[in-house]
Amino acid sequence: MKKYFAEFIGTAVLVTFGCGTAMLVGCDPTAGTGYLLTALAFGLSIVAEAYCIGNISGCHVNPAVSLGVLLSGRMSGRDFIGYLIAQVLGAICGSALLSAIFSLGNVTDQTGAYGTNGLAGVNGSVGAGFLVEMVLTFVFVLTVLGVTSKKANHGSFGGLIIGLTLTFVHILGIGLTGTSVNPARSIGPALMAAINGNPKPISLLWLFIVAPLAGGAIAALCYHGLAGKDDE
Amino acid sequence: MKKYFAEFIGTAVLVTFGCGTAMLVGCDPTAGTGYLLTALAFGLSIVAEAYCIGNISGCHVNPAVSLGVLLSGRMSGRDFIGYLIAQVLGAICGSALLSAIFSLGNVTDQTGAYGTNGLAGVNGSVGAGFLVEMVLTFVFVLTVLGVTSKKANHGSFGGLIIGLTLTFVHILGIGLTGTSVNPARSIGPALMAAINGNPKPISLLWLFIVAPLAGGAIAALCYHGLAGKDDE
Amino acid sequence: MKKYFAEFIGTAVLVTFGCGTAMLVGCDPTAGTGYLLTALAFGLSIVAEAYCIGNISGCHVNPAVSLGVLLSGRMSGRDFIGYLIAQVLGAICGSALLSAIFSLGNVTDQTGAYGTNGLAGVNGSVGAGFLVEMVLTFVFVLTVLGVTSKKANHGSFGGLIIGLTLTFVHILGIGLTGTSVNPARSIGPALMAAINGNPKPISLLWLFIVAPLAGGAIAALCYHGLAGKDDE
Amino acid sequence: MKKYFAEFIGTAVLVTFGCGTAMLVGCDPTAGTGYLLTALAFGLSIVAEAYCIGNISGCHVNPAVSLGVLLSGRMSGRDFIGYLIAQVLGAICGSALLSAIFSLGNVTDQTGAYGTNGLAGVNGSVGAGFLVEMVLTFVFVLTVLGVTSKKANHGSFGGLIIGLTLTFVHILGIGLTGTSVNPARSIGPALMAAINGNPKPISLLWLFIVAPLAGGAIAALCYHGLAGKDDE
Repeated sequence: MKKYFAEFIGTAVLVTFGCGTAMLVGCDPTAGTGYLLTALAFGLSIVAEAYCIGNISGCHVNPAVSLGVLLSGRMSGRDFIGYLIAQVLGAICGSALLSAIFSLGNVTDQTGAYGTNGLAGVNGSVGAGFLVEMVLTFVFVLTVLGVTSKKANHGSFGGLIIGLTLTFVHILGIGLTGTSVNPARSIGPALMAAINGNPKPISLLWLFIVAPLAGGAIAALCYHGLAGKDDE
Repeated sequence: MKKYFAEFIGTAVLVTFGCGTAMLVGCDPTAGTGYLLTALAFGLSIVAEAYCIGNISGCHVNPAVSLGVLLSGRMSGRDFIGYLIAQVLGAICGSALLSAIFSLGNVTDQTGAYGTNGLAGVNGSVGAGFLVEMVLTFVFVLTVLGVTSKKANHGSFGGLIIGLTLTFVHILGIGLTGTSVNPARSIGPALMAAINGNPKPISLLWLFIVAPLAGGAIAALCYHGLAGKDDE
Repeated sequence: MKKYFAEFIGTAVLVTFGCGTAMLVGCDPTAGTGYLLTALAFGLSIVAEAYCIGNISGCHVNPAVSLGVLLSGRMSGRDFIGYLIAQVLGAICGSALLSAIFSLGNVTDQTGAYGTNGLAGVNGSVGAGFLVEMVLTFVFVLTVLGVTSKKANHGSFGGLIIGLTLTFVHILGIGLTGTSVNPARSIGPALMAAINGNPKPISLLWLFIVAPLAGGAIAALCYHGLAGKDDE
Repeated sequence: MKKYFAEFIGTAVLVTFGCGTAMLVGCDPTAGTGYLLTALAFGLSIVAEAYCIGNISGCHVNPAVSLGVLLSGRMSGRDFIGYLIAQVLGAICGSALLSAIFSLGNVTDQTGAYGTNGLAGVNGSVGAGFLVEMVLTFVFVLTVLGVTSKKANHGSFGGLIIGLTLTFVHILGIGLTGTSVNPARSIGPALMAAINGNPKPISLLWLFIVAPLAGGAIAALCYHGLAGKDDE
């Protein structure tokens, strides 16, 4: 149970700090540092959590990462289900905490919808959005699998590199889809937006669940095709 | 005595560079890089100090961190008191040095009050401010305890990760409370502001002492609940 | 063949994320964070790829790097040719992917030409452009050779340091030539621009092939002059 | 001789990229990212050079660092003189290279004087400028000595931490004195400005030589007072 609780906390931190930063400072690349601050907040949440809950659960905090790990034969199906539930509950809890802070402090939400993902950056194109999320997640999960490979033996570097890579995929993705690469991170804010009267993010949720999972699965196949079966 | 002197220097550096950067370039997220520069200055002060005074005192430079370490059974009560006094004196010294530089050079203080913490970002809400400071410090101290765990054996990574995590919590916190997560860092500037005729930061000081200490204590309980008693 | 495929993927990721970020957010240093985001995207693509495909091919993803490695006697001539072809094909594939995403999503290309390199920043001066690209690549390849030296034994640090160094040379170079330091990275976008009716980048392509290769070759000679023959 | 040549190259790179970035993008903290880009360029030049010429000379590239190392008994007086000469010649060479690039490409120098240090940020106050440079160099050299301590055994972390610390001291210092903390870095641009008809930076050069050396010397005394004599 401890590892599930660790995943719950880690995903709550990711959503609270990542989506919270977007809500607080916005994501405009042409004025100020909001875009970069948001990319850093998501990435540094992994850097921070990897070295505390990473000791306990491996710090996936993302169903697409857990799927890649499952397909690599590095975790059981039972743990996969447990991680998934913990991650989604953690994301919802993170969004609820943000809702509490922003309404208590009467702070303006610059994203208008709890930092949900969407298709405004690609002018509503489902095809572009799906392609972007699949490519971003492919690159992210490929790096996760490579840096944590026991054969490559990168030791304590894992958390730092994975965090910097999450910042990396946000740099290209924020302006296109807001960057999900993580179904749990999309579900929490979309639910909170729906509760507060904005159902649109819920209607797009399928894309931000299916595309990241597809990207993660392809990454697992590709990495093990390249690195061989004895790499784990 | 050497370790107390090390804590004194480290906390003075944190306040001089962190609060000094906020005073020099401001913290507006919508224009220029002041917000990000301030977040980096606080975080990089830990990166720098962890690898020099860290050799001597462990580089807590923060009563909330020392409380977490004390509750984890990794330091004595006597040292805790010594660290606390050294940290508060260091923070006051850092604020005095800033006051000297800014008045000698006739430089405008963009924060208007020596980089003190406050509740303007949450429209005066004590509840929102308390919640924010508690959550930020919880995440920060949880990471400090995890990355310095002897069992996890992250070696020289500690200082880099803790510094990046301090930048991380500043990214969300600067726009809300200015980010304390460190009672000493709040006390120094508030005293200097009071000496110069602005008593308001002193009146809020209790919040920036109690909330970070509460967040640090909860982090210690939570981390050891997750990681077990033999993790130190 | 696996290592050639790894170089193909790595170079495609470099171009997709590096040039894609420039196309999405632009590179204006006087407003917003586009300039810095682009420098980070190029550098972090190396950080990410070094720890996954680096396990397989060494993650050169750049003919100038492969030339430096070849001249240092660390790879065969046959592999050099294979790497070169894979890198150029990867870069073309990356540019094609960007073209697909930007046209599917009807996103404006802020660079106007798929993030190609050019001489606008040096007012058309071939001399200045050549000098800049040679100096930037010299510094980049010198660091690649130094940090991967077996004698110096920097272990897993390689990918992180090389990535940060690529960001470093972009910081000075973006405003001057757009920073190539990598013939493959210049070829992909130039071809894509030509296909879409803009032949100018193709006409300058010789400079962004010759100058980086010259800089890389000088770096190899210089490094081994300094570090000795037994350093590999 | 090889180590002197390594110091020459390293200091030339520091000045070319650090001062060059300031000249290209300026250092305005209230618009765009010039201020942060300049701070990153100086710091990342150390990250890059530490892992190539660091293998050969230790990568001081700064007379204040060499003085700290000399006073710590870690280098001979003869080498100190050799390093000093190489560093100053390297800085002059870096400034000359910038002059060539900027005049060949007809690029505007945003600093107006080759990125020299000055007192405009402290309204001409010699006292404030001296205090700032002494404090900045104290912190920088203290970290250099701590992270390279053999007893602390931080291994390959040295270059990364020292580079991040140079970025750190630039964050506070750029807006006050332009941040020297390095007499060689001040001499090169001041000479180039004088040759081009602007003698003012030369007249302030004494301050940017004496204050950093004083800060470095105090850091050496302080570090060895704290860490003990057997720490080297």
